[in-house]
Amino acid sequence: MLIMIDPGGHMARDFHTIAITGKHTDPRVEESIRALTAHLSNEGRKVLIDPTVLIDFGDLAVAQPALDQLVASADLMVAIGGDGTMLYAARLAAAHALPLLGVNRGRLGFLADIANREMLERVDEVLAGNYLEEKRLMLETEILGDGPARTAIALNDIVLQKFETGRMLDFETWIDGVYVNTHGGDGMVVATPTGSTAYALSGGGPILHPTMQAIVLVPICPHTLSDRPLVIGDDSEIEIRVLAREGTRSEVICDGRLLDELTPDEKLIVRRGPAPVLLIHPVDYDYFRILRSKLHWGRGNRHADLDLDLDK
Amino acid sequence: MLIMIDPGGHMARDFHTIAITGKHTDPRVEESIRALTAHLSNEGRKVLIDPTVLIDFGDLAVAQPALDQLVASADLMVAIGGDGTMLYAARLAAAHALPLLGVNRGRLGFLADIANREMLERVDEVLAGNYLEEKRLMLETEILGDGPARTAIALNDIVLQKFETGRMLDFETWIDGVYVNTHGGDGMVVATPTGSTAYALSGGGPILHPTMQAIVLVPICPHTLSDRPLVIGDDSEIEIRVLAREGTRSEVICDGRLLDELTPDEKLIVRRGPAPVLLIHPVDYDYFRILRSKLHWGRGNRHADLDLDLDK
Amino acid sequence: MLIMIDPGGHMARDFHTIAITGKHTDPRVEESIRALTAHLSNEGRKVLIDPTVLIDFGDLAVAQPALDQLVASADLMVAIGGDGTMLYAARLAAAHALPLLGVNRGRLGFLADIANREMLERVDEVLAGNYLEEKRLMLETEILGDGPARTAIALNDIVLQKFETGRMLDFETWIDGVYVNTHGGDGMVVATPTGSTAYALSGGGPILHPTMQAIVLVPICPHTLSDRPLVIGDDSEIEIRVLAREGTRSEVICDGRLLDELTPDEKLIVRRGPAPVLLIHPVDYDYFRILRSKLHWGRGNRHADLDLDLDK
Amino acid sequence: MLIMIDPGGHMARDFHTIAITGKHTDPRVEESIRALTAHLSNEGRKVLIDPTVLIDFGDLAVAQPALDQLVASADLMVAIGGDGTMLYAARLAAAHALPLLGVNRGRLGFLADIANREMLERVDEVLAGNYLEEKRLMLETEILGDGPARTAIALNDIVLQKFETGRMLDFETWIDGVYVNTHGGDGMVVATPTGSTAYALSGGGPILHPTMQAIVLVPICPHTLSDRPLVIGDDSEIEIRVLAREGTRSEVICDGRLLDELTPDEKLIVRRGPAPVLLIHPVDYDYFRILRSKLHWGRGNRHADLDLDLDK
Repeated sequence: MLIMIDPGGHMARDFHTIAITGKHTDPRVEESIRALTAHLSNEGRKVLIDPTVLIDFGDLAVAQPALDQLVASADLMVAIGGDGTMLYAARLAAAHALPLLGVNRGRLGFLADIANREMLERVDEVLAGNYLEEKRLMLETEILGDGPARTAIALNDIVLQKFETGRMLDFETWIDGVYVNTHGGDGMVVATPTGSTAYALSGGGPILHPTMQAIVLVPICPHTLSDRPLVIGDDSEIEIRVLAREGTRSEVICDGRLLDELTPDEKLIVRRGPAPVLLIHPVDYDYFRILRSKLHWGRGNRHADLDLDLDK
Repeated sequence: MLIMIDPGGHMARDFHTIAITGKHTDPRVEESIRALTAHLSNEGRKVLIDPTVLIDFGDLAVAQPALDQLVASADLMVAIGGDGTMLYAARLAAAHALPLLGVNRGRLGFLADIANREMLERVDEVLAGNYLEEKRLMLETEILGDGPARTAIALNDIVLQKFETGRMLDFETWIDGVYVNTHGGDGMVVATPTGSTAYALSGGGPILHPTMQAIVLVPICPHTLSDRPLVIGDDSEIEIRVLAREGTRSEVICDGRLLDELTPDEKLIVRRGPAPVLLIHPVDYDYFRILRSKLHWGRGNRHADLDLDLDK
Repeated sequence: MLIMIDPGGHMARDFHTIAITGKHTDPRVEESIRALTAHLSNEGRKVLIDPTVLIDFGDLAVAQPALDQLVASADLMVAIGGDGTMLYAARLAAAHALPLLGVNRGRLGFLADIANREMLERVDEVLAGNYLEEKRLMLETEILGDGPARTAIALNDIVLQKFETGRMLDFETWIDGVYVNTHGGDGMVVATPTGSTAYALSGGGPILHPTMQAIVLVPICPHTLSDRPLVIGDDSEIEIRVLAREGTRSEVICDGRLLDELTPDEKLIVRRGPAPVLLIHPVDYDYFRILRSKLHWGRGNRHADLDLDLDK
Repeated sequence: MLIMIDPGGHMARDFHTIAITGKHTDPRVEESIRALTAHLSNEGRKVLIDPTVLIDFGDLAVAQPALDQLVASADLMVAIGGDGTMLYAARLAAAHALPLLGVNRGRLGFLADIANREMLERVDEVLAGNYLEEKRLMLETEILGDGPARTAIALNDIVLQKFETGRMLDFETWIDGVYVNTHGGDGMVVATPTGSTAYALSGGGPILHPTMQAIVLVPICPHTLSDRPLVIGDDSEIEIRVLAREGTRSEVICDGRLLDELTPDEKLIVRRGPAPVLLIHPVDYDYFRILRSKLHWGRGNRHADLDLDLDK
């Protein structure tokens, strides 16, 4: 079942202290942060601003505690921007089970599903207890070798990719210690259901419904055309090792950010993260409506004209 | 080079007698046929209407000769509708080297590239000699067996497909008498450059620029994942034979219309048709603009939001 | 985790009565059925033969009860043939929780994973309690309309497909009552993890590990290129309705066999079947080894030569 | 038509001076070079060895002139190794219209189509005038900016790709000065027919028959799923410009070797090279046989077992 938790009115969380983050270098975001801060302060909520957000708030009463303190003391985080801002915020929020609400700078995003023009109204609905809660699986990754492990968490994906080379990578995959395949190609995307509509989709992967407890491995430009995307349970652990080959190097990317190079004497581990992120949605949230919108599904598509009058 | 013939002013054809066709059961098309007929008559052109178009023209002076006579005596054919109407008109026009102009019932089509709202203005431009000419490759097909050959021509594609079965077809392909492959799957699309943006595209085929003298073979749901689309020259002849297999039957479809069943003791031949169709375009015709529009290319795409602010 | 049940020695089932099925028209299968029957009888097991298997067993003591009785009284079913035989046997066995073991006529199959040349040895190992048990999800489907419902179960897939037409279908999908999309194309494959390596794979679907409690919807030759495969939980119910359109008809295929036509006033329901099928594997069963073998993964692939000496 | 030139006996070229190249660090290649050299010397041919080949030839009479001189004075070049060696040799040979024959170190390659075990016999046949000639299109590329142009030629492909980033590239394409699209993704492969079975195929491109005068543009992991491969004539000129974007860099790879970084103020031009390379094949050369072998086409494919006995 496509189940999310609807807390109803009386069971709702008490969102007293609100943390706000966003890409302050975008003027539209700056304006929204300011507007939301003023609105929440007026309503008597306590507002904490991400300390990396450099905005002059003038007379507004805001605090900008250290990030650790901010996520520890807030009851709700609001991220204003696009899905990239949501990825950043999810990594902050997940560890503290801090609920996360996304406001899109422009049109709807996959993750930031409140449109900017209805921000105040929708936030008020949420604060009044009218919202849906959804847990989204996150991934944890480690590069293990002689030195200290390098680790990261990701809401979308962990990507192994070649760099500085015109040659393909050779790499091996194991799942729960069982050998899977030796791949040739540009690399591998290991994605959550959330990430299945991002880079993994460009690589030919399927869409995983967000409620799936699943991980998808999508080979990037695979050498062998039958090296297809593979969907496994989120309780499996994936191990990837690159094979030594003259003139090739590979690196690990987590939610779009470089973690480190992966060398042939190291191994890359990917598993379910220690905690999911808790997304807060408006009550009319509809995942498939977002899919239809973002993927241009449905009516008005490619050769509708052709087909409607095929015989003349 | 992406070459089309621009006749300039003085070299232009004399379009005195204009044949009009369209799907008369669509009220918008009926209205456009009537409007264009009145307009052309006013300007002193002779108008011939496709005899299968059942419209009451009232006082308008129109002739509805037999189709053979219509295409033989017209200087230009105008097809009003969608790309399906254009396929129908192209099959009529090609044999007589009759230039063909398409008016779209609604928004732009791949083939019918004059929008309805600017029909009269654009047709006048063409009649004044301001237009581009483009030759589009057509295919000819034959089913050869014990009985009489069944033949057809097509502007988009010739399709071999299974029918009335849940099993895949086994079939063999030869090109110019050289054995290519034994395929398993739902069938095969043999498409022109024009057809490369229709069914062949849904099957995973590439886009062929309309100026290419090329044919593409696109296996439908191939059994073997490396059985990829193959592009060959339009001077090659393709032969396909289905292998006998319990519980499977196959049929041949030309531009969306059934030609006949194909049995294991017959062979399907596809080659370049005897003549291309001559499309007439407005002078600002831009194939890539149509692609961008029909395929939702460019800005505003899938995760633009995500990428523009990936780090926060 | 890629978990299967390893019954160990003392917990193993008692396989006294063995049902055997296979495609008797294949001489290799006939020979194997005869050999296995003789072997099991010698060992004192009771052998039941599928009544549709028409073989002269000579002096061998075999019973051929009605199918209902056969599956009700057997402790183990052995299917000899290919994966098609396994699909047939799974539909029989699932309803009675009858464990199912597959012997391949030739090389390894996805489902029939005992090679013919080692049949007796491997069957003996299983009978001695050395085996793995694996539950495989099955689907149940219903066509609901004015008349009586038509139902079927399937181990691989339920397929909606066009027939007798050169036009695409228009159809709508709902999941758990939530509208998903209006699709144009040749149809839709709804597949289990087992079926994900069959027709769904040819349609561009991902591989689902057999332990996944998941269903994948794979659009066939979709009109809209972003209409990608969708993976959902196996506790969801899928509803599909075709839209009325001149010149198109659609039919429902279950594990390769026609169920019935689907008309625009009917709806197609697909959900998890009432019971999974219980596959019995040799103890060295390795799903990924089968994948590598069937999909030509790994070494010796496409341009290995190219890449190993790219610079000269 | 799938035409190649068959010189017959009396019209054949006189192959007196033979240039040999190969990857000398591969012991099998070293052995073959030595064997071929001895054989040709015995037969009275003059043998020139690529000066970068570091082998001790002992008593064998070989010359190792500078590369320029080698290609200018030879009548035939024999490349021993894999397809990578052929790419290297083709770039040397094309400019001097020097015919090129490939001997594969192991099994057949796409380009090196004489197997090692039959090397001497096949080379003798060619020297006796029994061979086919085939022209293969090559590409030429330039990076144009403020500094000096950087140029290269390639037999397979020119690739624009991201490097050192987890973000996608934004780039624009023009063909013959006409704007085509603004792409998001990992980059773009511009491939010849020869290259269509290499990296372009992994990216989802079609197979172009080697006789096609065509170029294919294959977007790598495109953002927009309808951003499909595009086939154009080889007389068209392609221009690509990357858009400035924080945190992304791109580079140009020619036949697997880095040409240079491409910056947003530069443009990448790709066009047909000044000369094709002239491949020499044994008289039984069959392109489709090589395709079938390299791509695992035909019998024994994925679920053959399944389908042959689908009903039981």
